[in-house]
Amino acid sequence: MLDQSTICAISTSPGIGAIAVIRLSGSEAITIADKIFKSPKQGKTLAVQKANTIHFGQIIQNNDVIDEVVISLFKAPHSFTGENSVEIACHGSTYIQQKILEVLIENGARLAMPGEFTQRAFLNGKMDLSQAEAVADVISSSNAAAHKLAINQMRGGFSKEIGALRDQLLHFTAMVELELDFAEEEVEFADRKELRNLTERIELLLRKLKDSFQLGNAIKKGIPIAIVGETNVGKSTLLNALLNEDKAIVSDIHGTTRDVIEDVVNIHGTAFRFFDTAGIRDTDDHIENLGIERSYSKLELATVVLLVVDTENPYPIIEQRIRKIRERVSENQTLIIVANKIDSGLGKTIQLLEVLELTDNEKMVFIAAKQKENLDKLIDFMIHSVNFDAASQQDIIVTNARHYEILKNAHEAILRVLNGLDMQISGDFLAQDIRECLHYLGEITGEISTDEVLGHIFASFCIGK
Amino acid sequence: MLDQSTICAISTSPGIGAIAVIRLSGSEAITIADKIFKSPKQGKTLAVQKANTIHFGQIIQNNDVIDEVVISLFKAPHSFTGENSVEIACHGSTYIQQKILEVLIENGARLAMPGEFTQRAFLNGKMDLSQAEAVADVISSSNAAAHKLAINQMRGGFSKEIGALRDQLLHFTAMVELELDFAEEEVEFADRKELRNLTERIELLLRKLKDSFQLGNAIKKGIPIAIVGETNVGKSTLLNALLNEDKAIVSDIHGTTRDVIEDVVNIHGTAFRFFDTAGIRDTDDHIENLGIERSYSKLELATVVLLVVDTENPYPIIEQRIRKIRERVSENQTLIIVANKIDSGLGKTIQLLEVLELTDNEKMVFIAAKQKENLDKLIDFMIHSVNFDAASQQDIIVTNARHYEILKNAHEAILRVLNGLDMQISGDFLAQDIRECLHYLGEITGEISTDEVLGHIFASFCIGK
Repeated sequence: MLDQSTICAISTSPGIGAIAVIRLSGSEAITIADKIFKSPKQGKTLAVQKANTIHFGQIIQNNDVIDEVVISLFKAPHSFTGENSVEIACHGSTYIQQKILEVLIENGARLAMPGEFTQRAFLNGKMDLSQAEAVADVISSSNAAAHKLAINQMRGGFSKEIGALRDQLLHFTAMVELELDFAEEEVEFADRKELRNLTERIELLLRKLKDSFQLGNAIKKGIPIAIVGETNVGKSTLLNALLNEDKAIVSDIHGTTRDVIEDVVNIHGTAFRFFDTAGIRDTDDHIENLGIERSYSKLELATVVLLVVDTENPYPIIEQRIRKIRERVSENQTLIIVANKIDSGLGKTIQLLEVLELTDNEKMVFIAAKQKENLDKLIDFMIHSVNFDAASQQDIIVTNARHYEILKNAHEAILRVLNGLDMQISGDFLAQDIRECLHYLGEITGEISTDEVLGHIFASFCIGK
Repeated sequence: MLDQSTICAISTSPGIGAIAVIRLSGSEAITIADKIFKSPKQGKTLAVQKANTIHFGQIIQNNDVIDEVVISLFKAPHSFTGENSVEIACHGSTYIQQKILEVLIENGARLAMPGEFTQRAFLNGKMDLSQAEAVADVISSSNAAAHKLAINQMRGGFSKEIGALRDQLLHFTAMVELELDFAEEEVEFADRKELRNLTERIELLLRKLKDSFQLGNAIKKGIPIAIVGETNVGKSTLLNALLNEDKAIVSDIHGTTRDVIEDVVNIHGTAFRFFDTAGIRDTDDHIENLGIERSYSKLELATVVLLVVDTENPYPIIEQRIRKIRERVSENQTLIIVANKIDSGLGKTIQLLEVLELTDNEKMVFIAAKQKENLDKLIDFMIHSVNFDAASQQDIIVTNARHYEILKNAHEAILRVLNGLDMQISGDFLAQDIRECLHYLGEITGEISTDEVLGHIFASFCIGK
């Protein structure tokens, strides 16, 4: 049974603003609002007003005017929650906001729990679970790419993709289960080759979705970038230039940057998560060695590795360094060789670097970090090192860790189906794995959900949403 | 000429919330909103919609969906500003808020200056200047009494009072100026006695308004309360008990509280501004002596003086202390003698205190600060020490320093009129002072205003209001 109680909460950012909005939703929303609302037009009540209209008046508590407000009226099912809803735009003093909440509660509303408005929207069928989850992502997204993915998911892009997958799977099950009905006659309604093709397509789609999480997560949380290189080549100077502020210690003493610093910065609408790492060089200093260890371990987590080299050094030293890093960078990562100090570098070194052969996942850029020279080109490489075209082509990219876990399970199930087809196992075993896969996909959209799962999802929302 | 440009601003509190509201006002507000708004109903535009209606749709920038929003439509002159206005309720991410501002500006709006929406409401005759000023007070008021005064002023209570004063003065001028027209005939249209009566009434009213500022200011900023008493009688313990937290240092060593601590606290909807003061006793400690000096100097600023005495001491010591403080407390102040430590006090001392004679502006209360015993009674005395009945009887109380300055000038002018009547000076001189008084009152309501004054007033507003 749905909770029909009327809930209220301050929906705008806490603190003092010019205005604040208090949201009220539930079967009694309009009735409760009428008890505390006084229109300048004698005898006017909200109950008889049309939906989607705005009304000026006062909020009254024991004959005292709490505030002059503007009320927006929404009627079920045409509201965000699908219920009767009232939004009260009041003056943005915290005193007034609290007072209005107080008088609403006195008149029968109760304080909403985090995410409860969105939860009701889900429970009333206004959106599926993945759309509801996207609402929180929309609110917390702080860069263009993450925002785009969240908006797309909120608008149902992801749901459509999952829906299409479910349809294909249902078609599959139908065929297999039809065979089961006629098991004694040993007919094959479904051409096994066709079935295999379908399964392979589904497997590919699930794999693509599952694998997109790495990118999705990078977009949501920032693309992980490791800056490596020997000490004193200008890593901290470069990081600072990119961050445009002085969070890392910049110094000429070898081995200054012992701690891994993480900084998230928005560059041209894309979030990057920088690991500034200790200089990688042979050293006897125990603490510095620990830093270097961390450097290497962070390398694996990075999508982009910036190897900073100092063009003031002779070429063989640099070449050796590049060779060493190349051993540790996988082909899923992008290695950008950043040749620093071109203003004071050795001509010979620069010449030889310019003709260095690069693989597909490698780039080179010549900069002077201190003078902020050529940083634009480096940033360009960084941004294009991630395949954002996928995002802009409206392909579905998974950003939600819950979805990722479910997709992993769904993918394993479909692999079992594929394996079953290879082993020519009987239809009922196949059907079981397919149903399992269907079950998982239902968990994403919320067709299959438990109170526990819902509680967990909506608890991370802010109150008032 | 009124500025007709269309202004926009985020009107809700900055930061992340469930929703945020962006306000747009000016002749082009609806036209600009239509450029960026896309309704799910193909071809629907805001321009042809009725006023005071709500519309769901998307905000679009270069074919990208920035957000799904709810738009409220207001049409001139029936809006807060008196202009065409649009309010966009979007998801409360700072990224989205900034993006929507950006796309509004791209389409011809400009960022509003602080208070510009309210300034336009004033310039378009939706409210007078004192009402506009009250909007800022409403937003910043943090306790019941201040909120009540601000709401009353915003709703025009103060304006009515000033208006009535102006009417009386205009009647006065009319009579006097009629006499001037017939000056050669030496008639007196206005009975001098009647004129004097009227002037006296106006003088009384102006004086009442001017004098109400002390109370108004106390309500707005907190009623100033000084806590005095010898060291070690429990002043800090009392303050902490009242503040319900540990901001002052509580210690048994004599003379701990050397600095004057100011704390504003809301008790039962009334704001009190506490000065915790160094113990007042004879001492050789130079720094402590400075603290005691400050104690005494703060005494004058207080509306209420709490003299804390320790009932563990013999009565003569306490009596001497009370005598000394009485010398320094004026009859405009309330002195509350707080007899502390009644749980461990001397019976004899308590007995003698109980029969101490008190004047009209003195109260006595027996408490145990450490055990928080009888604090309610003390709080009751504190609250009733200020004449809040005035506020609750809807009398006008001046809370605005600008109004106070103007009222002082207006009062001086009317005193000159009164003086002129006594000296039987000629009507044209009287008329000049009356006109001056009228001019001042016009400055309060904004009938007479300069750009400079307006600029100064609205600059203190927040952006978006």
